[in-house]
Amino acid sequence: MSFITLTTDFGTKDHFVGAVKGAIFSELADAKIVDITHEISPFSITETAYILKNSYKSFPKGTTHIVGVDSELSIDNKHIALELDGHFFVCPDNGIISMIASEIVPTKIVEINIHDRIESSFPVLDVFVKVACFIARGGNLTVIGREIKEFKKLVEIQPKVNQSQNQIIGGVLYIDNYGNIITNISKKMFNDVGKGRAFKVTASRYSFTKIFNKYNEIKGTSSSDYNQFDGNKLALFNSAGYLEIAIYRSNLKTVGGASTLLGLEYRDPIIIDFFTESKPEYTPLT
Amino acid sequence: MSFITLTTDFGTKDHFVGAVKGAIFSELADAKIVDITHEISPFSITETAYILKNSYKSFPKGTTHIVGVDSELSIDNKHIALELDGHFFVCPDNGIISMIASEIVPTKIVEINIHDRIESSFPVLDVFVKVACFIARGGNLTVIGREIKEFKKLVEIQPKVNQSQNQIIGGVLYIDNYGNIITNISKKMFNDVGKGRAFKVTASRYSFTKIFNKYNEIKGTSSSDYNQFDGNKLALFNSAGYLEIAIYRSNLKTVGGASTLLGLEYRDPIIIDFFTESKPEYTPLT
Amino acid sequence: MSFITLTTDFGTKDHFVGAVKGAIFSELADAKIVDITHEISPFSITETAYILKNSYKSFPKGTTHIVGVDSELSIDNKHIALELDGHFFVCPDNGIISMIASEIVPTKIVEINIHDRIESSFPVLDVFVKVACFIARGGNLTVIGREIKEFKKLVEIQPKVNQSQNQIIGGVLYIDNYGNIITNISKKMFNDVGKGRAFKVTASRYSFTKIFNKYNEIKGTSSSDYNQFDGNKLALFNSAGYLEIAIYRSNLKTVGGASTLLGLEYRDPIIIDFFTESKPEYTPLT
Repeated sequence: MSFITLTTDFGTKDHFVGAVKGAIFSELADAKIVDITHEISPFSITETAYILKNSYKSFPKGTTHIVGVDSELSIDNKHIALELDGHFFVCPDNGIISMIASEIVPTKIVEINIHDRIESSFPVLDVFVKVACFIARGGNLTVIGREIKEFKKLVEIQPKVNQSQNQIIGGVLYIDNYGNIITNISKKMFNDVGKGRAFKVTASRYSFTKIFNKYNEIKGTSSSDYNQFDGNKLALFNSAGYLEIAIYRSNLKTVGGASTLLGLEYRDPIIIDFFTESKPEYTPLT
Repeated sequence: MSFITLTTDFGTKDHFVGAVKGAIFSELADAKIVDITHEISPFSITETAYILKNSYKSFPKGTTHIVGVDSELSIDNKHIALELDGHFFVCPDNGIISMIASEIVPTKIVEINIHDRIESSFPVLDVFVKVACFIARGGNLTVIGREIKEFKKLVEIQPKVNQSQNQIIGGVLYIDNYGNIITNISKKMFNDVGKGRAFKVTASRYSFTKIFNKYNEIKGTSSSDYNQFDGNKLALFNSAGYLEIAIYRSNLKTVGGASTLLGLEYRDPIIIDFFTESKPEYTPLT
Repeated sequence: MSFITLTTDFGTKDHFVGAVKGAIFSELADAKIVDITHEISPFSITETAYILKNSYKSFPKGTTHIVGVDSELSIDNKHIALELDGHFFVCPDNGIISMIASEIVPTKIVEINIHDRIESSFPVLDVFVKVACFIARGGNLTVIGREIKEFKKLVEIQPKVNQSQNQIIGGVLYIDNYGNIITNISKKMFNDVGKGRAFKVTASRYSFTKIFNKYNEIKGTSSSDYNQFDGNKLALFNSAGYLEIAIYRSNLKTVGGASTLLGLEYRDPIIIDFFTESKPEYTPLT
């Protein structure tokens, strides 16, 4: 059973996705192709990195992941294939792998060189499909490229910690389907820096002193009116392990989500202050 | 062959759908996963109920349907699994099953209790996948939960009949991809109450005295200009068996659909009057 | 292994796609169903023709392609099944096949007549699924319909060449996910008419004297700032072999794409002038 996933910015209207799937099945009729998403914002490397990191793990080991975002070959943008955590990735070397690879070191990376003479404006179809099917059939990475040690890093998605270790300066990484704001601050970093101290999360002109682990915790143990908390702001560590600012049961298309209601966009700052002594006085604006 | 369907409000951009599919394949490599939809309006139980009712039937008996809409566990929102009409459903007990179960009585319902200690903001991934794969492998419902007799009902989606049995007061249940208006009035109810009498359907400031069975009936048997009826309003019983108000060959994104042209939204009233004696005088505004 | 593809204007929210897939699996449990797209603009035959032409080829020979766009049966709109280039198509006879069939002659075309008494507003579910599964199981086309020789042509999508053979008058055929403008002028026609002469492409108030073969060619061989060419206009022959006007690395939803920036819509003219003697004086507005 060969699993191949697709993560692209192709959208689902054009012929691109259909053509790629047809080509995979023509090479490997019993492949199982799974769409992770085709709705990446055009050319967005950060979105790709976040989505890929949070979905690849749940697939069986040995799965091959094709990533088609900003993938046209150029001297600045090589094509690579790599093995990491028992999974294979076929992608451009533009930083999309760095969010995964910052935690888990790749076992092997090759710069694909089987296509040095292919001039193509659709490399996912003309190159990545062949490479992925070769890997899915058990082929060795070194056959399709030259081993390399380095890959491009994405620096912008790393939060900073100040020198006195009492402030994390993070930012908005991603806005999800519900309009919830995903930050680049992980629960692990929060715990490592915070060490159990009192804290205040500041996002736009709002602040939070409690971080939940699930949305429904906002209701406490009350069994009262089901809808009374709808529209409340909350901070939580989401299922991906990142700090998220959410509106309880929001609808981005009607009443709006956290992103629209708090006026936050990609890259806007999210600050966490930790308080060594006692929790200072402040009035939350929630 | 194990069929598992997915009906959620996750959207198709985030990592949620990919992660769930990966987890299913990790449990059950030869599962056949089918997306019913991931475009449910966030938290909309009525939409889910309508879409699920009109799609589940066409799948092979024995299919397991995962429903991930408003599925976070709370004391008001239990997780259930049930068998109904030879199909299995894994879903929150929030009313989404009631449109199907109002016509066909479930064989067995259990409240899932294998996860009493799992705190999760992503129960579809952490709980429903395991339960669905257990069922898909032939597991017994009683192993994963405690049998219950009741499930939550959705009252709002039932039309009313007046005491003298000459009026159905229904409402807008759903707006489809073409902007067509689906009401909660079924052909069966129309026939049961109407008993062949003359009638008038009132929707916003328009009325209809004829209900078609297919869109093209508006053209009669004329073979004249193909496009001359484009943009005409019509009432029909749609393929799901519900009264629908449509614009013939409309495009919601350009000229608009029935919902925008008639100014109707979810829950707006749709009235059918039946006339015992003779059809009264009135001037249709169509 | 039976491959069945779906190309429709159903959208992905309603129950239509799920119902169709369930019905296919109920007929043919081991079918491999592939979505080409469900995002065709409602009733758009040109879009369907373009997407189908550019995706069907990459599938294995023997694949059956179901096309559900404007497919309700009427006296002007018959249902047909055909074999072409080793592939099978089940579709309405409304022109969607003509872009493929203009280059490759169908081996056999039948007008489906197994359903003469089925009145249905959802023929893809009620008719096409049965026909496609019959074909996918190896059934003969002549069993399901009466052989015909003609199919409906789409005239509007053919560019014109002037009498002196120095001008191609084409038009906008399609706007893709990135907002890029696909014209109906193929590379083959460009070469056949142009015969290597100097040329000028005019699109709205812009003109181009160079046509690239891939997007990155706009950068030449420079390895300088990765983003300096973002937002530049360019003309290229795309991976489908058609002349395309693009904005380098554009995002339709934020800064806009070629369609919005050049103000071009479906059917707007795209002109290519060829110059026999010497290239005339003109000032490109790019």
